[in-house]
Amino acid sequence: LSFRNIKIILEYDGTHFCGWQIQKKGISIQGLLQETLKRITGEKLHVIASGRTDAGVHAFAQVAHFKTSSHLSLEKLKSALNALLPPTVVVKKIEETSPDFHAQLDATRKLYAYLILNDSTPSAFIHRYSWQIARPLDWDAIHRALELFVGRHDFKSFQSAGTPVKSTVREIYWVGIQRLSETPLSLHSLVLRSPSPSTGEGWGEGGLYALLLEANGFLKQMVRNIVGTVVQVGQGRLKVSDVKKILEIKDRRKAGPTAPAKGLFLVKVEY
Amino acid sequence: LSFRNIKIILEYDGTHFCGWQIQKKGISIQGLLQETLKRITGEKLHVIASGRTDAGVHAFAQVAHFKTSSHLSLEKLKSALNALLPPTVVVKKIEETSPDFHAQLDATRKLYAYLILNDSTPSAFIHRYSWQIARPLDWDAIHRALELFVGRHDFKSFQSAGTPVKSTVREIYWVGIQRLSETPLSLHSLVLRSPSPSTGEGWGEGGLYALLLEANGFLKQMVRNIVGTVVQVGQGRLKVSDVKKILEIKDRRKAGPTAPAKGLFLVKVEY
Repeated sequence: LSFRNIKIILEYDGTHFCGWQIQKKGISIQGLLQETLKRITGEKLHVIASGRTDAGVHAFAQVAHFKTSSHLSLEKLKSALNALLPPTVVVKKIEETSPDFHAQLDATRKLYAYLILNDSTPSAFIHRYSWQIARPLDWDAIHRALELFVGRHDFKSFQSAGTPVKSTVREIYWVGIQRLSETPLSLHSLVLRSPSPSTGEGWGEGGLYALLLEANGFLKQMVRNIVGTVVQVGQGRLKVSDVKKILEIKDRRKAGPTAPAKGLFLVKVEY
Repeated sequence: LSFRNIKIILEYDGTHFCGWQIQKKGISIQGLLQETLKRITGEKLHVIASGRTDAGVHAFAQVAHFKTSSHLSLEKLKSALNALLPPTVVVKKIEETSPDFHAQLDATRKLYAYLILNDSTPSAFIHRYSWQIARPLDWDAIHRALELFVGRHDFKSFQSAGTPVKSTVREIYWVGIQRLSETPLSLHSLVLRSPSPSTGEGWGEGGLYALLLEANGFLKQMVRNIVGTVVQVGQGRLKVSDVKKILEIKDRRKAGPTAPAKGLFLVKVEY
């Protein structure tokens, strides 16, 4: 019996899922994929992702692999998956990879983005994909706090309980903040590519911001714990220098709260 | 008793609503607003929009008005509405307007956009807001067909049954097609503002297109009937010259099918 090792790139809207991994309660992306692959191939397959994403977290390009003895062409396999999966889970790309490729163990670099809508007026289209904070944040202070995380650190203060790991040391290669001057799913920015017309008022004084973090790996809820902490800096509740102390003290209780899952996106995985 | 006439600009994600207008079944945006205003002001108010939007149709800037004797400040009224409405309906702006302003009767110009994802691979984020057509469309032919609608015409062939009107003559001022080279709710376009990175493959060969139509008014489902017809031109099922004939023949049965509601956005209303 010969097996093919299949690598897939997945996009998903995590809003209504219990996360990547199969749980006792709720619908998981892994579970959905395995059930759908069983319908297509008749095989009980195990699908392994680059890492778990929590309930409510989204992905633009999660990477996963599975081994199958099915002879279906890659094109047909992709079409069948996309036809049978719900519209919120999409196989963007599929390819046959080397027999020893492992989506989790071989990952060398991951990029996450966290979206914050810093505006007193909510957005009907972005609320599923961002954390709305009504009062103006000090984005300069947030940027300075975020930059303290770059480098090789013990991130124990930013690890949520629940998944034991051998080491809490990770290396963050790069962080960034980008302001999206207008609400994205607004035709003014997307389609018309023009400033708001005279009558299309009300896009607010604030804006949509993306916090970007790239590392060799992340601990459980590490991005959301970092975001929750730097937001406290932006609110004046913590000083930039406090963040340095929290990182050094290696105690989760000293850091800020965990930011909501819905603002988080897995953007890229490198091998 | 003195009444204030309040004008509001509304953004809504129409996915789970039965449309603007109160219906026997389903939740309407008008009904939600009136119930919420009753909770806030204690008054049974009538909220009038620039026009009805159908079930599933979205709005970036629907305009509506209502008269109230409440003394609540505009700022508090807006905050209370946004706190009590579901996150898919947002009051973007609120202002007091002249006592005789009428959101429906005074509207002089409306802009609609219709999004088509012309790609064999679906999108987990855009599926709620676009009509996915897998096979490549002839966009040049679609553009030529769409331009035939500009001007003052009897649009009877593009009016769905159900809402009798005095005249089926309307004037389309402007049409346009814009290609959004990348899927919008992808961080590659929104956040990173860069081409897809080497590992972030799979955004497809196709793209997201917006069809834009601006007119002094639209008949029932007129935009969706025009889109359904020009798409048939893009599929080679109709010729560009057929569209001219369909417009002249004034018979709904000759035009193409009604495009799905979920791709349609009310973008702007002018007065």
